[in-house]
Parts: sequence; C-alpha cells; structure tokens
Amino acid sequence: MTVRAPIDTPVQKAALTESSGKRRRNTAHLRDHTRQVILEAATQEFAERGYFDVSIRDIARRAGVAQGLAYHYFDSKESLFAAQVAYTTGIWIEEFLAWRESQEFASLPGFLVEYLMFMRHFIQESHPAYFRFYMKHIHIDNLPHLDFFFDRVSMIQPYFQREIDAARRRGELRADLDPPIIVFQVETLSSSLQEAFYSDFLGMGLGIFKGDPEEIRQNLHRLIACGLAGVLEKTTQ
Amino acid sequence: MTVRAPIDTPVQKAALTESSGKRRRNTAHLRDHTRQVILEAATQEFAERGYFDVSIRDIARRAGVAQGLAYHYFDSKESLFAAQVAYTTGIWIEEFLAWRESQEFASLPGFLVEYLMFMRHFIQESHPAYFRFYMKHIHIDNLPHLDFFFDRVSMIQPYFQREIDAARRRGELRADLDPPIIVFQVETLSSSLQEAFYSDFLGMGLGIFKGDPEEIRQNLHRLIACGLAGVLEKTTQ
Repeated sequence: MTVRAPIDTPVQKAALTESSGKRRRNTAHLRDHTRQVILEAATQEFAERGYFDVSIRDIARRAGVAQGLAYHYFDSKESLFAAQVAYTTGIWIEEFLAWRESQEFASLPGFLVEYLMFMRHFIQESHPAYFRFYMKHIHIDNLPHLDFFFDRVSMIQPYFQREIDAARRRGELRADLDPPIIVFQVETLSSSLQEAFYSDFLGMGLGIFKGDPEEIRQNLHRLIACGLAGVLEKTTQ
Repeated sequence: MTVRAPIDTPVQKAALTESSGKRRRNTAHLRDHTRQVILEAATQEFAERGYFDVSIRDIARRAGVAQGLAYHYFDSKESLFAAQVAYTTGIWIEEFLAWRESQEFASLPGFLVEYLMFMRHFIQESHPAYFRFYMKHIHIDNLPHLDFFFDRVSMIQPYFQREIDAARRRGELRADLDPPIIVFQVETLSSSLQEAFYSDFLGMGLGIFKGDPEEIRQNLHRLIACGLAGVLEKTTQ
C-alpha cells in the first residue's frame, strides 16, 4: 500500500466517537456486535459503489438493521465512514502485527516474500472487500477524512522501515545508494505485487495470483530478486 | 499508467456519437469549440470531485454555457463522460505519438528516462487535470464505460512492448527471464515514477518532482538503473 508520513490529526479521535450517550453496560456486547455488523456492511457497500454513491439507508439495508439504529451509532455518513476506516485498518494492522511477531527474517527479500504472502492472504482470502475499498478511495481527494485514512495506513510504515534498516545493518544493501532510492524500490515492488493480487494483473503470466502457496512463494522470490537486484549488494544475490 | 489488454468494444463508437441531428456545416467550427470547452470543464469537474458527485448542471456552469446547450451536445452525463474519456485520452495519445516520432533511442533505460520526462511534462505542466482524472477513476469498478476507459489507455501498450522487444533484439535483457517478468518490472517502475510526479511522493528525497529538467533526468537515470538492474544483462549496466 502507498504510505505517507503519519499526520497527527484530531479526526482519529472523532472516528472513535459514537453518537449515543444512551449506552447501558449490560448490553455492551450486543451493541458492539451490531456496530460491527454495520461497519462490515458499510465496507461492502463503499467497496462496491464508492463513498459518494452510498447512503446510510443502503448500509442499514445491507446490514439488516433499521435506519434509525444505524443513526443511533453514527451521527452521519461522514462519521460512519471515519469509524469504518478506523475499523478496517485496525483489523489489518492487528493481523499484520500478529503475523510479524510470529516470525524472524534473515534477509530483506525473505521478509518481502513472506509479507506479500501475508498480504495476498489478507487481500484475496480473509478480507477481500478491504483492499478493494482502499483502492477505490485512495485517490479521491475530496473524500472526507482523507488525512485520517492516510494516517491509519501509515501506521505500518515504521515496521517496513525497520526491515530496511536491519538489512542495511546486515550489509545486504548497496552502501553508495541514497536511502530514499532503496525505500522507493522496496515500496514500488511491494505495492505493485499487492495490486497484482488484487487485480489479477499478470495472474496468468507470473503465477502469483492463484495456485499453490509454495508455487506462488517461488514466483515471488524470482520477482523480488529481479526487483531488488539494483539495491542489493552483489554478494547477497 | 496501468494497462490492460485492448478490448474491442462498441462503446468507443457511442462515445463519439453526439445527440444532435441539428448540425449546420457553417457553424461547425463554433460548435466544435463549444464542445471542447464543455469537455475540458467536464475533465476539471470529474478530476476534482469524481464522476458520481458531478452533474451536467455543474459542468455547464463551469464551462459557462447554458445547461440546455450541454444537452444539445450530449444526451446524458454517461455519454458526456464517454466523450470526455475519448477526448482526454485522445490528446494524450496524440502528444505521445508526436513525441515518439521525434526521437530515436539506443537503449531501454534511455527510452524510459525520456518517456518519463514526457509524462512528467504532461502530468505536471501541459494537462495537470488529465492524470488526476485518471487516478481518481481507474479503480471505480462501477464506473460507466470502464472497459472503454481501459481500452483507450491501452492504446499506448504496443509502443511500450515495441521498446521492450527492441531491447531484447539489442541483447540488453537477460535471456533467462520470462518476458512477463521483464514487462512487470518495466511497467512497475514506469507507473510508480508517474505516480511520484502526480502525488509529489518522494519529491523531497529523490528530486524528481520539481526542479531543473537536467537534474530530474539525472535522478531518473539513477532510479531506472536500480529498478532495471535485475532484468538487464550485466554488461549493459
């Protein structure tokens, strides 16, 4: 995913604000479940038709709840949208962190292959609407809460940078290149392969869209070796 | 730009169909000028706010013409949109071909640098709304005439492929790599650098967003050398 530098924004707080002061502790579990059903329905609707073409009425219908109940949770489509961005990116970051903590990587290409295998699973299998939602909205610059959206997506950036720094310490990277060139190459390759998973672009030719995970992994190793050849020390190729 | 295989579609014809049978030859010049003013206003409106959030009324207002006159040229927002896609991509392809015919290239990296300099000029200086329009709409999969849009953008693909084939004949490319891997690398690098021009991503660090064309050209040479290192024969690096 394309990332920007984190922005400290008050919208993040707003996204977590719900409209109701009517909460009762003993129904918290049920309320949370309903809220989640509405947010998942919103993700599906926005992913299919885009922010401006979807109403709270559409989302409530899809969630199978009364429109008034949706308004009980969210004051407006705009606040629902902010909560939905916080919710979907929250799940993505949570699953990324759980995956990241479970593994050790000896090389940058090794990290990238497994990161892309994680993203492929996330995009194609576990949450197919989330990346579709992201791709549909990322370039709409009159989108409400766009800075908040970028801010959320950027939360993964330090982990990415950490792997590049570790590769530099291990001597994997050419010492004569400016760090931004290395970041550009890694980011470009990673984003393009994620888009390939999403759009089935090159699915036929490169075998990275569908098929056996081991075969996909092998093809990713080849692609990443080509894509990083210019930034890796010759000895590690 | 991301491209798909050309699709033979009847929408292309529809895009060039205008609603009026009321034409008179002696005012053809004036009519064409008005049509162009409406299409340019449509590009600006769609680029800023997106297809679904813009009406013919908005476009007519921006063009400074009566709404009825806009309907005289285009039956509906959908047909206006198709005509606008045909118009903007037509200008892009025309300018690309004029540029392409004016130059000879001895190497794939040399071609890519100059192609990106052409695209940078197009995106940032000569037609700043066109790429913005493209980036905003390319992932909206309920967009009317989306196949036609991809079809138009794909018209540049054979020229791109031709340069890769020429590089192969000159022995610039590794013979052991599958052609789709080479296409993927070239396409990925080219698209990412175009997005960098558009979004000012990496503008500070890599000096390819703004500044003196010679400096930008030198930075592009470095980036392309890194990005293509894995697909070029070692001798040509």
